[in-house]
Parts: sequence; structure tokens; C-alpha cells
Amino acid sequence: MLEKLKNEVYQSNMQLSKLGLVTFTWGNVSGIDRKKGLFVIKPSGVAYENLTPEDMVVVNLKGEVVEGKLNPSSDTPTHTVLYNEFPLIGGIVHTHSPWAVSFAEAGMDIPALGTTHADTFYGDVPVSDALSKAEIESDYEENTGKVIVRTFKEKSIDPSAVPAVLVRQHGPFTWGKDPQQAVYNAKVLEVVAEMSYHALQLTKADIKVPQFLLDKHYYRKHGKDAYYGQTNAKSKIHAKKI
Amino acid sequence: MLEKLKNEVYQSNMQLSKLGLVTFTWGNVSGIDRKKGLFVIKPSGVAYENLTPEDMVVVNLKGEVVEGKLNPSSDTPTHTVLYNEFPLIGGIVHTHSPWAVSFAEAGMDIPALGTTHADTFYGDVPVSDALSKAEIESDYEENTGKVIVRTFKEKSIDPSAVPAVLVRQHGPFTWGKDPQQAVYNAKVLEVVAEMSYHALQLTKADIKVPQFLLDKHYYRKHGKDAYYGQTNAKSKIHAKKI
Amino acid sequence: MLEKLKNEVYQSNMQLSKLGLVTFTWGNVSGIDRKKGLFVIKPSGVAYENLTPEDMVVVNLKGEVVEGKLNPSSDTPTHTVLYNEFPLIGGIVHTHSPWAVSFAEAGMDIPALGTTHADTFYGDVPVSDALSKAEIESDYEENTGKVIVRTFKEKSIDPSAVPAVLVRQHGPFTWGKDPQQAVYNAKVLEVVAEMSYHALQLTKADIKVPQFLLDKHYYRKHGKDAYYGQTNAKSKIHAKKI
Amino acid sequence: MLEKLKNEVYQSNMQLSKLGLVTFTWGNVSGIDRKKGLFVIKPSGVAYENLTPEDMVVVNLKGEVVEGKLNPSSDTPTHTVLYNEFPLIGGIVHTHSPWAVSFAEAGMDIPALGTTHADTFYGDVPVSDALSKAEIESDYEENTGKVIVRTFKEKSIDPSAVPAVLVRQHGPFTWGKDPQQAVYNAKVLEVVAEMSYHALQLTKADIKVPQFLLDKHYYRKHGKDAYYGQTNAKSKIHAKKI
Repeated sequence: MLEKLKNEVYQSNMQLSKLGLVTFTWGNVSGIDRKKGLFVIKPSGVAYENLTPEDMVVVNLKGEVVEGKLNPSSDTPTHTVLYNEFPLIGGIVHTHSPWAVSFAEAGMDIPALGTTHADTFYGDVPVSDALSKAEIESDYEENTGKVIVRTFKEKSIDPSAVPAVLVRQHGPFTWGKDPQQAVYNAKVLEVVAEMSYHALQLTKADIKVPQFLLDKHYYRKHGKDAYYGQTNAKSKIHAKKI
Repeated sequence: MLEKLKNEVYQSNMQLSKLGLVTFTWGNVSGIDRKKGLFVIKPSGVAYENLTPEDMVVVNLKGEVVEGKLNPSSDTPTHTVLYNEFPLIGGIVHTHSPWAVSFAEAGMDIPALGTTHADTFYGDVPVSDALSKAEIESDYEENTGKVIVRTFKEKSIDPSAVPAVLVRQHGPFTWGKDPQQAVYNAKVLEVVAEMSYHALQLTKADIKVPQFLLDKHYYRKHGKDAYYGQTNAKSKIHAKKI
Repeated sequence: MLEKLKNEVYQSNMQLSKLGLVTFTWGNVSGIDRKKGLFVIKPSGVAYENLTPEDMVVVNLKGEVVEGKLNPSSDTPTHTVLYNEFPLIGGIVHTHSPWAVSFAEAGMDIPALGTTHADTFYGDVPVSDALSKAEIESDYEENTGKVIVRTFKEKSIDPSAVPAVLVRQHGPFTWGKDPQQAVYNAKVLEVVAEMSYHALQLTKADIKVPQFLLDKHYYRKHGKDAYYGQTNAKSKIHAKKI
Repeated sequence: MLEKLKNEVYQSNMQLSKLGLVTFTWGNVSGIDRKKGLFVIKPSGVAYENLTPEDMVVVNLKGEVVEGKLNPSSDTPTHTVLYNEFPLIGGIVHTHSPWAVSFAEAGMDIPALGTTHADTFYGDVPVSDALSKAEIESDYEENTGKVIVRTFKEKSIDPSAVPAVLVRQHGPFTWGKDPQQAVYNAKVLEVVAEMSYHALQLTKADIKVPQFLLDKHYYRKHGKDAYYGQTNAKSKIHAKKI
């Protein structure tokens, strides 16, 4: 079942590895079929070089395995929460990419300091609160999803406009309309984390970009007035910006 | 038309990718035929692995597409301004290379701290002012070109002697006598940004090089008394310095 | 003799090189056969590209060469001490990986700042005391082993729970149940050193993770209640975490 | 003439590129035949991919070209001074490797902070004085050699014990008993510059290693009591340390 989606999720997992975002097996991608209410996710702890499309695991929106011989990613309950609470997203990525993790460990948002950031993220990428002892000791991975959702609600951030979060003391989750876009956003996040880190070391001045720059860059790539790229773009994941 | 220039611009775009200066499609190179008053530029949002010489778009000095099936780079109006205002340049490069972007985000010039810098840039590489709300909301890309030109005029910098700029909150543009040299300068800029960053973290002393070192290094590579390299150098882009 | 173990140690040495943990020949891996009381170690100063499984040297727990045409690693006395004093370990790795060395040179523990760290190291990775003049001038490599053991005793750290140390002014040693796991731990150490470095530069706040997060992450991967990965995992070294 | 040495110098130049120490053509290696009083050096500004052993240029100890169709490296006068003033060295390397350049630009010695440094450099790697206006305007490259020699004399450093220098505002030169060892030292210098940079950012404590550690590490690899490596080592450049 869901052969096409399984292949797409498989390819996106492999792309994650090729983009230099994972050490060992520390990353996972999932994608959802909204009509069927099922999502496909990488199995737990299988090396990328051994992974096949058939290894992908099918899970329903209660987080139950529907098909698959292998255990799904241990982060599956986090993905389940996000698919239930963010109804517009079609793919999710989790990595331990080092620049994004450094901000998560420091407990700092990745501030919007330039157009590279604004092209993909319509504002600062938020860091979540730390999980409490109770949240960690029971239903840990589910609570990881809940703290992400709470972060976006409390800060009134639209998850479609800022498709990424840093879970404090842990690392980044990103999402998108499909698995490929979620992978694209995971790479952009790592790149802007690196740029922001160095800019913040160079100066103590307030260097956040103004709202009108965020508006300009975000909307020239998103929504009905977007004017980037080609209608006949050959590869969606590469067609985001010149 | 302009088949030779198209191929040159195509090769320079591919070189940009090989030199590690671009993530996804975030870079573009153009080159101009001054006699015909036409320039050739990369199409918008096409992945490097899918790019062909035929995809290049021909544009006139009003910024109008003269030939090409694809949309030109969304930065085309910036290139148009630069070709009109800097009559000696033959090629332009724009990237989001991370070290140079970090200085652009911090709003800092890349200071001339050593011979690696002085061999290519005859002084600090300036950061432009930030664009105003009005400049961003209308004719944004054209105004990006204008703020670059304004920066060089206000600071009395010769764009042939310092063939690079950082657009504040955005990133670097470089240029040269042809597309290959503009690519070469884009790489040098990234390397000297990295070196300067680390030197500035190591010490708070004033470590800018004196004018006579700039003179020596710049003029042993440029102008009639240059004594670097070979007259029979096999590859212009590699023949800049031992 | 010990052909299987020699091959395993050879493969682990090659893996060390592939994971980007060594410059030139600056690294070594050993593995022990506890029943026979013999361990196998890389010869001294042989380039990775010339190394063969037959080059591995067999050493007893007094540190004497039992078989092998080449000199064993000059760090052999350090390995001997660790195998004698840490009876549960089956493999040892030494490298000069740059991020870990930077902490060793700064004389600082690598603090546990996130889940990437807690998944493998149940607490801070300790830096040892510096060796004294007497300890360096006589039996230097043996004393390097002794200072590691002393560090774990004085700080009451279980070497099975924190399978890594930084020898001050020198660099990291890691270990594991077998050579592959020791290599895995050497890579994790380098990655968490890099992440911790950047987090520590971003903030002066106390960002150490709480004990309950260490408990959660460590025990979901270790011991009888672990729930990570697959029982049918294809590659042990890659099966540590999704 | 000198075909064997030309090939050796050619191979060492290619090695410099493979070790990631050069951008474009910014590096050169030379090697000397002390009996004949002639040295062989890379030509100026030829790309590594186009270089052949036959392109190497033969120069005498007055700095005059004896054989070769191409111009020698513009740094040839610097090499000439070093071969004349440091009679024990057999090969010289110059690069613009970024970590070493950062210290040169900051005007700081690379301090000896650990065993990685002490294994190759018997003490801090010194930064030279800046060249004066007069020294730069006339015989610049020769004066670069002279300021290196002056630095070692004034600080009473033995160039055989510390085979590297940072020319202030410029970059590193290294040397060795032959071109391969000079290349090896150029790589070690870059690695220890990176490690030292990060250690210096982590702490403001005095973390220089004591003299007895320098003695131990330097002399276990150099001189008559050295006990590293194999007498039957297959590759000298890789046989420096386990």
C-alpha cells in the first residue's frame, strides 16, 4: 500500500543524508496521505546504505502501525501529534544537524537576520520550552510534539509561515507541504543557523531584519503574488529561489 | 544568438556550484556582450544538475528579455543596474555564500587584514546601507542595484579596484572583466570573509593592513607593472596568483 | 591467531579514517578477546591506505607483543591499562579529532547540553588532570592510562555509562563493548564537542541538561528497558538511534 | 636535469592540493639538491590540474632560473633566502591555508597547547614582524625571507625544531628535511591552528603546555631516542605518529 508515498519518503530520507544533515542514523522523514489518514515513516535505527523503499512503515493518526515489518522511528508519536495538530502539513523531518542543535542547546531562537532566512521562514524560528520531568518520564515523544504545538500557539506563529522549530535541549523539526519541502526546509534551517551564529559573534548590535523585509521576501516566494522560479520547474525541491 | 557567451555563462554557473558557493539554486552568474549591449543570465530557480547552455536567457540593458524560454533570474534588475552604472565590468555573480552573508547580516565591511585580501580587493569590501521600506516595497531588485552603486559613490570606491560588495541583510555581489573572473572574485570573497572572521575573534587590536601593503599586493597582480603568473597561462581563472 | 578479531580491528581502524576523525595516521583502534586475555591493535605509524588485517599486532595484558611483525601503536601501554582496569570494555579508540582536542587543550569537560550527548554519554565527558613532570618523563603512555582511571575513580564515573575521556593537553580516548562501538562513540564525541562549543559561545546561561533528561535518553537506548532500533538491525554501528 | 627532484616537488605540490591546503593556485612547494646547489619550484599561477613534473622550474641559490620554460613562483626570492640561511632544510612550502592565515592576520603566535602541536613543533610557532614600507616597496619577496630569518634569530628559535612561521599580514611558510616533510608540516600547522583557535575561545586561562611535555613529545619523534613508527615504514609522510 501507498507505494508512491513510500518511495517519496524513502527518497527524502536519502536526500537528508546526501545534504549532510545526518550523522549515522540520526534523522527521519515522514510523509502523509491526508485522504487515507495514514503516514509513512522511516524505520528505527536502520543505516541509510541499507534502507529500501519497502522498509518504510505505515502508521495511522492514532500512531498505530498499519503495515511494515520493522519498528517505526521512535519519534513516531511526535510526528503523529504534528500531523493531527498542523492539518496543512504533508511531510515532517527531524535531524540532529549541528548548527541548529547548538541553538536548541543554547535555548535561543534562530533570529531572522537576512534574506536567506526570510525567503523560507517568515520570522524567527522559535525554540520550545524545555520539557518538564513529568513530560519526559511519561509519553516523552508525544510530549515533544505537544510542546512544539504549544510553542506555536503561545507565540501566535503560523506553522505554515515558519515551518520549523527547535526543541530545547534536543534539536530541529521542520515540515512542509510534502516530504521534499520538509527536507528543503531542514537544509535551509541549518544554513541560516550557521549564518546567524557568525553574525551574532561579529556584532552585539540589533541586527534583526525589519517586518517589511520579511514581508517582501516571504511573499515573493509564497502565495498568489509569488514571482520566483519557473512554472515549468523541473525539480520542486530545487525550484525555491534563484 | 550569443552562443559563445551563453556557454561561458553556463560554465561559470556550474563553476559556482563546484566551488561550494551555493546551496540549492541560490546563486547566479551573468556575462555581457558590450558591443551588442546584451547580457546572458541564468534562468530562475533551475537546479544546477538540470541546467544546460541553451537555458541561458538573453536580456538587454533595459532589463527586457530578448531571447529565452525560461524566466531569467529574479535578480536580473540588479544585474541590469550594475552593467549600466559600472561600464567596465563584463560579468556579475550573486551568491548566498555563508561567510560573506554573515558579514552582510552583521552590517560590517570585510576589512582588509592581509595579503590574501589585498591580492584581489584593493581595500575593505563595503557593506551597503539597508534598503528602506519604500525601496523594498517597489522595484526591490532594481533598488538593490542602486544601493550598491550609491555605496561605491558615497565611499569613493572604484568598482574595478574593489570588485565586490555586501548588500546589507542580504549577501554578496561580485563582478569582474568577464564571468569567470567574477566567479573567481566570489570565491576569494568567501575565503577572506572566513579568515577575517577568525582574525577578528582572536584579537581586538587594530589589524588592518597599511596602504603600502595594499598598493604592493594589488599592483603586482593588476595593471601594467603586474608580474604574477604566466603570459601563457592555461586557465585565466586559475592564473591569478601562485 | 585471532583472525576474526584482527579483521574487526582492521575494519574499525579504516572506519575511523572514513568518519573523518583522523589526520595522517593519528588514530588507533584496538579490540580484546577477554577469554584469551589478548588484544589486537594497529601497528605504529602505518598509513591507512597501506594497512592490511595481517598488519595488526597481538598483545597480552602485560603489554607484551605476542604476535606481529610491526611495532604496535606507541599508545599500547595506555590501552593495556584500560583493558586491565575497565574489565567490561571490549574495544578502545584514540584520536586527535579537532573539536574534542580543543576541549582537552582548554582543560574543560564536554558538558551534557542536549539529547545528542545524553543518548551516548550519561553525563559530562570528563577531562583528566594534566600529567606531572615525573609521570611524563617515565612510563608516559602507561601513566596516560593511569590518569584516565584515576579521573573516573575520583569523580565516581562509571566507564560503561560515560565511555569517553579527554586527556588534558592531549586528546580523546573512547571505548565500548567492541571496537565498532568504540569507533561509534569516538564520532559521537566529536559531534557533541562541536555542538557544545557553539552553544557555549552563544550563551553564558547555565544550559546543562537536568538529570531526568539524562536518565530518559540514556536508558531508552541502554539496559533492559531500551526501546530504540530493531532486534533485526543490519549493522550494529548504525543501529544506535533513529 | 634533476628529474627525480622535479617529480618529488611535483608530487608534493599535488599533495598540498589533496590535503585541502590551497584555494585556486595559492600555494607552492620547492625542494633542493644541496650538492648541486639548485632547487626546483612550482611555476607561477598554473592550475594544479594542468601541472606536470616537466613544468617545474630549476633555480640556483642566487635566485636565477637555470632551467624551465615557465616563470617560477613569485615567492622564489623568499625560498632562496630560506635555503641560504637555513642550511639544514631540504624543502619549503607556502600556502594561504585559512586557520594559519587567521593567526598571521591577528598578529599572534600559534601557542603550543597540546601534544598534537608538540609532536611536530617544539614550541610556539612564531609570527614575524610586519614588513616596513621600505621592505615592501623594494625586494618584497626577498625581504619576506629576511623577516622570517630575523624572527628566528631574535627569538632564538631553531628552525629545525620549529619548522614553521607565520608572516604577519600574510600567511604560513613551513619547511622540512625534504618537500614531503614540508607538506606534512604545512598540514599539521593548519590542524593545530584550528585546535588552538577553539581552545583559546573556550577559556582565558593560561593553557600553554609545560616545557617537559614539549621535551617528551618532540624527542619521542625526533633525534636518536625517538621510538615512534616503524623502521620499515612504507611512506615517510605518513609515518610520523600513530
